[in-house]
Amino acid sequence: MKRPALFRALALCSLLALALGARQAFPDQGRRVKAFIDKNGASILKEYSEFLSIPNVASAAKNIRRNAEAIVAMLRRRGVEARLLEGEGCPPLVYGEIAQPGAKKTIIFYAHYDGQPIDPVQWKDDPWKPVLRDRRLEDAGKIVDRSAITFERGRDYRLYGRSTSDDKAPIMALAVAVDFLKSELTSPSINLKFLFEGEEEAGSPHLQGLLRKYRELLRADALFICDGPVDQTGRMQVTFGARGSMGLEMTVYGPNHPLHSGHYGNWAPNPISLLTGLLAGTRDQDGGIGIEGFYDDVRPVSEADKNAIAELPDIDARLRREYGLAWSEAGNARLASRILMPALNFRGLEAGAVGAKAANAVPAEARASIDFRLVPDQDPENVKKLVEAHISARGFHILWRDPTPDERINHAKLIKLEWEDGYPPYRLALDDPFGREVVRTLGAALSEPPLRLPALGGSVPMKMFADVLGIPVLGLPIVNYDNNQHGPNENLRLGNLWDGIAVFAALFSGLGQDWR
Amino acid sequence: MKRPALFRALALCSLLALALGARQAFPDQGRRVKAFIDKNGASILKEYSEFLSIPNVASAAKNIRRNAEAIVAMLRRRGVEARLLEGEGCPPLVYGEIAQPGAKKTIIFYAHYDGQPIDPVQWKDDPWKPVLRDRRLEDAGKIVDRSAITFERGRDYRLYGRSTSDDKAPIMALAVAVDFLKSELTSPSINLKFLFEGEEEAGSPHLQGLLRKYRELLRADALFICDGPVDQTGRMQVTFGARGSMGLEMTVYGPNHPLHSGHYGNWAPNPISLLTGLLAGTRDQDGGIGIEGFYDDVRPVSEADKNAIAELPDIDARLRREYGLAWSEAGNARLASRILMPALNFRGLEAGAVGAKAANAVPAEARASIDFRLVPDQDPENVKKLVEAHISARGFHILWRDPTPDERINHAKLIKLEWEDGYPPYRLALDDPFGREVVRTLGAALSEPPLRLPALGGSVPMKMFADVLGIPVLGLPIVNYDNNQHGPNENLRLGNLWDGIAVFAALFSGLGQDWR
Repeated sequence: MKRPALFRALALCSLLALALGARQAFPDQGRRVKAFIDKNGASILKEYSEFLSIPNVASAAKNIRRNAEAIVAMLRRRGVEARLLEGEGCPPLVYGEIAQPGAKKTIIFYAHYDGQPIDPVQWKDDPWKPVLRDRRLEDAGKIVDRSAITFERGRDYRLYGRSTSDDKAPIMALAVAVDFLKSELTSPSINLKFLFEGEEEAGSPHLQGLLRKYRELLRADALFICDGPVDQTGRMQVTFGARGSMGLEMTVYGPNHPLHSGHYGNWAPNPISLLTGLLAGTRDQDGGIGIEGFYDDVRPVSEADKNAIAELPDIDARLRREYGLAWSEAGNARLASRILMPALNFRGLEAGAVGAKAANAVPAEARASIDFRLVPDQDPENVKKLVEAHISARGFHILWRDPTPDERINHAKLIKLEWEDGYPPYRLALDDPFGREVVRTLGAALSEPPLRLPALGGSVPMKMFADVLGIPVLGLPIVNYDNNQHGPNENLRLGNLWDGIAVFAALFSGLGQDWR
Repeated sequence: MKRPALFRALALCSLLALALGARQAFPDQGRRVKAFIDKNGASILKEYSEFLSIPNVASAAKNIRRNAEAIVAMLRRRGVEARLLEGEGCPPLVYGEIAQPGAKKTIIFYAHYDGQPIDPVQWKDDPWKPVLRDRRLEDAGKIVDRSAITFERGRDYRLYGRSTSDDKAPIMALAVAVDFLKSELTSPSINLKFLFEGEEEAGSPHLQGLLRKYRELLRADALFICDGPVDQTGRMQVTFGARGSMGLEMTVYGPNHPLHSGHYGNWAPNPISLLTGLLAGTRDQDGGIGIEGFYDDVRPVSEADKNAIAELPDIDARLRREYGLAWSEAGNARLASRILMPALNFRGLEAGAVGAKAANAVPAEARASIDFRLVPDQDPENVKKLVEAHISARGFHILWRDPTPDERINHAKLIKLEWEDGYPPYRLALDDPFGREVVRTLGAALSEPPLRLPALGGSVPMKMFADVLGIPVLGLPIVNYDNNQHGPNENLRLGNLWDGIAVFAALFSGLGQDWR
């Protein structure tokens, strides 16, 4: 596939710009991006709405492919070399590239084009027919025509539809950032690679294999994961890591069928009692984890991390109010510091029945569901061993399948464990040269420097990219935090789309060549 | 209503018999009952099947009344004065009476004519068209015609249908026992009163009011509750008490909606953690209750209780095998002794979700359902106070309704409690004169003395009868323990019906006049 002539021309300009000191070449770029959006906003929204109208539920293979092909077309319209990277029995990756003669660095921007399943009855509007409102639905937002609005960033315009935020917004913003550079007759300071996945919401089961398969093509110096929301205050942020995750299902056994609690209560062992006793010992009510050795591999929080946290806005009191909480764990320790620590979260309980359905019986079994959040240098396999050792030490005989009748009779305390795969934790040092360069570039381009989040509380496959491609990875979210991600009435605050375009344009044209 | 002539005649014979030493008048009555059943078994089964064919789900008022009227007719056919005792907005009680001139004692036999709801798809046969099988369904029992069978007690004939066991069997057996006495041209040694309730399976919400309303009519010296199954070994038993019961629903609160466990896990308080910590402190895994003061009112187990338990067959090892248990609580202490102690049974848990539905979130709330079993001299109101004091002492702010947003923000640990009404415990001393007379009478009539169970593990309204009527109450079950009570394929072992007839006939004619 041939690289378009325009970009060859732009490349020459770029070399010239670099020679003239490209690192400070766009001090007022933000203002020019605004002018670009003022002029092109309606057509941007038209293109985005058409893209959003292609259903993208991860399980619908045909529509997923339509999305992939639409992105290829979208990139090619802009002169980006683009194509599908196929795998076995999975949606294709969309790959795009702008190779920049003379550029010393290559950066991958990753996002995903599949979306969460929808429950239409819960949606105010059709999730596949994007609707623009003048403010949030919760604030009685009214439908407005996209040609009739103005594009001031301060307004709270919202575009409603599946994947408006998660995660088609970065794809659209990246494409428009390319348009902006073209409109400026300038070119990227770096080689750009785009990588868009089609089954992130299904847990990215094929991503690692695809990265290995296309490792040569994906050779780069760093990668941005463009997913998730910005800070609750609306400030742009760069995330230097993410907690890992693991899931665990536990089933504890009582009698082989429920027994009348009058006739057998306090004779037949109660599985809820066995389970709650076990759970109560794994963590305290303040979030502290009681599994022996659990903290041994936890890397101490560095001074740099502490300093970065100190710079983050303190939103804890506001969040507690918003979430109806009188307190938060570890003595109201700050959220930003808590997500630098591992977490043991009880996500579910099920046994017998409660309320009107409760029967006076000793239940046959009791189940708990747990998710762990891990931090460097915890290793999921080692955590499994520690958890199982903790359970064994409490007298449980561990199985990884249902017990046989003989096992029930021969073991006083039986537990079935089912481990779910998850993500290992990842952390890039705050003083990593790439991270510093990104923060510098954005600081120069935006009205205020980006926040530096040492780690996202949630789990994204940063470590997978880092390990397979051997490069540093940063998280670069652009969308609003109140986007109803994964739920009904997902929306994108238009101001966040405009900011995203500015951010990507700043990185395309402003990232230097000398970090390593 | 006039008392039939026959019974007047029988009354005279009875007086004569008493004068001749009625207490030993029927040493071979069991043999004669058997001959009576051999002769009349087919017509007994015909009458019983017709009675069982009237649907008796407690919530269907019209059918419930048809049952009540059928029982009145059934009693009148036998010369028993019978009528309905009406209450406000509830099924009528069926009342019947055989007044015996010269008798010094009056005994009430209580049973209930309503049944549990049915789920037809789970039944092998129509629950309202009784079917006779030559053995249990589990043993591949085949349908047999009632006229073609023999009535040896050793056979395992089963009659399938709703309420075959629970609790129409005693009603039928009592009626046939009257027939038997008539066939013997003898009469009861005591005044008999029959009392059959129509909403026991709905929790007897009107029973106490009805007992108060008809207290004068129900004047008596003692009452039998004819409900529940006999011992698992098949031995006839008399129960001298029952544990009380109480229900409690607990809801513990976290954030006002589920929060992403990556972003908020180990910052937002986890309601499952709060709940499991609380539950783990209320009882240990061995059945011991950790609520301060819970055992203070527990009457020590008497020597007489211990002796009675020592006489019971030891079925614990067999039950553990049957129920798939390697152990039972309190170091394999005997079931019969454990049900003399109070129990705290966890009957249900619910929070978030487990398995495939588990979401990585801090749940908004966690619920537990508990039932207590109480023993003398525990008082439900005092137990409530102790439980609430225990919970308060652990820092929980207790509500009896949903929390307001302000309460959520102002209290670190919030819990909602919903108490369910239950039954207080009841215990008649093993050396109570009435109890002794019953054991003596049955011992003389049966091939072996009845077991004396100090208390039933389950809860029945013995104390309500004892308190309102001011008389001793005993439990006298007749049906087989494996009757599938409350479930599909409820059945009655015919041998138990025959035994029940013999037991009631023995009591009718053999109970002495001198106990008090």
